[in-house]
Amino acid sequence: MKKIAILGSTGSIGTQTVDILPSIDAEVVALTTNRRIDLLEQQARALRPKMVCACEEQAARDLKVKLADTDTKVLSGMDGLTACAAESGADIVVTAVVGMVGLLPTLAAIDAGKDIALANKETLVCAGGLVMRAARDKGVKILPVDSEHSAIFQCAQAAHGNPLAKIILTASGGPFFGKTAAEMRHVTREQALAHPNWSMGAKITIDSATMMNKGLELIEAMWLYDMAPEDIEIVIHRESIVHSAVEFADGAMIAQLGLPDMRLPIQYALTYPARVPCKVPRLNLAEAAKLTFYAPDYEAFPALNLARQAAAQKGDRGAVLNGANEAAVGLFLDGKIAFGEIAERVARALDTIPYRREVTLDDVLAADAAARAAARA
Amino acid sequence: MKKIAILGSTGSIGTQTVDILPSIDAEVVALTTNRRIDLLEQQARALRPKMVCACEEQAARDLKVKLADTDTKVLSGMDGLTACAAESGADIVVTAVVGMVGLLPTLAAIDAGKDIALANKETLVCAGGLVMRAARDKGVKILPVDSEHSAIFQCAQAAHGNPLAKIILTASGGPFFGKTAAEMRHVTREQALAHPNWSMGAKITIDSATMMNKGLELIEAMWLYDMAPEDIEIVIHRESIVHSAVEFADGAMIAQLGLPDMRLPIQYALTYPARVPCKVPRLNLAEAAKLTFYAPDYEAFPALNLARQAAAQKGDRGAVLNGANEAAVGLFLDGKIAFGEIAERVARALDTIPYRREVTLDDVLAADAAARAAARA
Repeated sequence: MKKIAILGSTGSIGTQTVDILPSIDAEVVALTTNRRIDLLEQQARALRPKMVCACEEQAARDLKVKLADTDTKVLSGMDGLTACAAESGADIVVTAVVGMVGLLPTLAAIDAGKDIALANKETLVCAGGLVMRAARDKGVKILPVDSEHSAIFQCAQAAHGNPLAKIILTASGGPFFGKTAAEMRHVTREQALAHPNWSMGAKITIDSATMMNKGLELIEAMWLYDMAPEDIEIVIHRESIVHSAVEFADGAMIAQLGLPDMRLPIQYALTYPARVPCKVPRLNLAEAAKLTFYAPDYEAFPALNLARQAAAQKGDRGAVLNGANEAAVGLFLDGKIAFGEIAERVARALDTIPYRREVTLDDVLAADAAARAAARA
Repeated sequence: MKKIAILGSTGSIGTQTVDILPSIDAEVVALTTNRRIDLLEQQARALRPKMVCACEEQAARDLKVKLADTDTKVLSGMDGLTACAAESGADIVVTAVVGMVGLLPTLAAIDAGKDIALANKETLVCAGGLVMRAARDKGVKILPVDSEHSAIFQCAQAAHGNPLAKIILTASGGPFFGKTAAEMRHVTREQALAHPNWSMGAKITIDSATMMNKGLELIEAMWLYDMAPEDIEIVIHRESIVHSAVEFADGAMIAQLGLPDMRLPIQYALTYPARVPCKVPRLNLAEAAKLTFYAPDYEAFPALNLARQAAAQKGDRGAVLNGANEAAVGLFLDGKIAFGEIAERVARALDTIPYRREVTLDDVLAADAAARAAARA
């Protein structure tokens, strides 16, 4: 029975992870939330983990009261999050927290020899070089949960030693597919939050609208599969049925298809290399009827080129790109800047923060802080 | 350097096999033709095989004269074909002859421990049980060359011990997609030979028009992948880009895509498990733009149900289905029967020839002969 820690169990990926638990042979040893303690309490009573964490101190105090009649240990803050990742006795840690906060506990879990079911984009975007090196050193598996990276991982299972010649990263195109930069400049928060295919958190939904999400995924894919960014092609696929594909030296393309439902890639990360029945509805190709593909519009979605630039430069550029974007998206969600300004603020951060090629964890954190400040200025 | 024998080197698959030889590290040890000796002479002078065969006796005599100044041994008839398969020192035998004639040399090659690059449908359709058992006993690989079965094989490389839950066999639908049985009944030879996507021989092109080709492929897939026929779904895919797919227990679908060009699956069968650059043009999904899928019309294409019936019954039914179809297609190509009569003649053979469940090779040959006679009657 696999022991699982779920960091961010009350978020979108976290709740879907909890949802598929009955399909797999697993014991949950840790759960964490930022401050959604009512849901965390429910989850803790159902799953009886060894420890839980609420990152916010007051929430942790309230949660402690709620769970006083149970054996579950209640922790708080970044220390609690890290303890849940590294000291809960997990075999595998689902890193489903959103944002830069996921980096430290992920590194702690790798250091403790835990496999990672990676659902936190920022970990690889900001510190891909550090994280992949640590995983190699510790012999730890990084199992992608994101539907695109899971698809690439599933397709790469067919490689049998043959290198991937190309990755084809599919993108829904988001709610503003087909619009020009000028048409998008002043779209509202509500328009940007209306994603056509996927139900996700607010930050990632905005990233999907700017297509920064795909840019971040390109950087993740580069690190996960040790690919040159120019060998990662982005293709718009409105139906979100082909979750991504790989191409081999002979030109054969292998793709993974399914209905858009995160529970399948979550489950595969947890059961890998085995596959077990999943509650997700099955794809019927004849019912899907039509799959369409388009080249992305790099002019309308400048975030894509910013991400390609950061990917090519590596070093601290992923952290700058991500930190500036996280701050700018926050400003947009707070109604402080226009939609079109998000990419501009990211570009400004990349332009003004000096480039550092070799990075330590401290450099990554410093680049992140500098980028946030630059984006907010 | 892999030693290759190509049975049927002057046909459609054979010439495409010769075409990709420069891409792979191979030595050709045998070539065969029925009677296209001018082309065989050219191939023999370029490739310098140890032996060649022309199945027709007069053609073999003429070929012997043509190649008198070379070291290549010239054989004739079924004995010559079998010698090229089993006694040419090949590591792998490409069985690209069309029709029932492919069965005996394939069995001889398996018996001699040669891997098979299988491009002859009839081998598995008529004697799948015998052939797969012989291959297992001899530890011989059956590597599919057909684009659909190669696609399934490529997708199955991702299985890593997980059984295939389902095979999704794609079909172009042929030139008469969307027509009713009544509309198709009296189409001409020329109409039936106009295939939308693939350039193939006449027999297989007619099989594509009746969709018997897909029925035969269903039987092949059943044997190759040890699948129940009801777990093999046929889906019409007009663009012939998705060459087929598999589904695992969790519902994940893995598909192989590429432009419709047989040289890729031929090459993969010969280089497996390695992949090397192939001269075939690359698929660009954004250029392909649109992939469509439809459920097949079992009423308009009765060959599909005849094949499903033969697949479910096994025994000698594959040989009866195939023999009757081969004879009926011959009658159609000779202008002797209407297009709509092809399936009727096959159905009559299945109805009138007594069913035999356990079959030997002699039973298969007898069933084939009886089916041809029944279809011609």
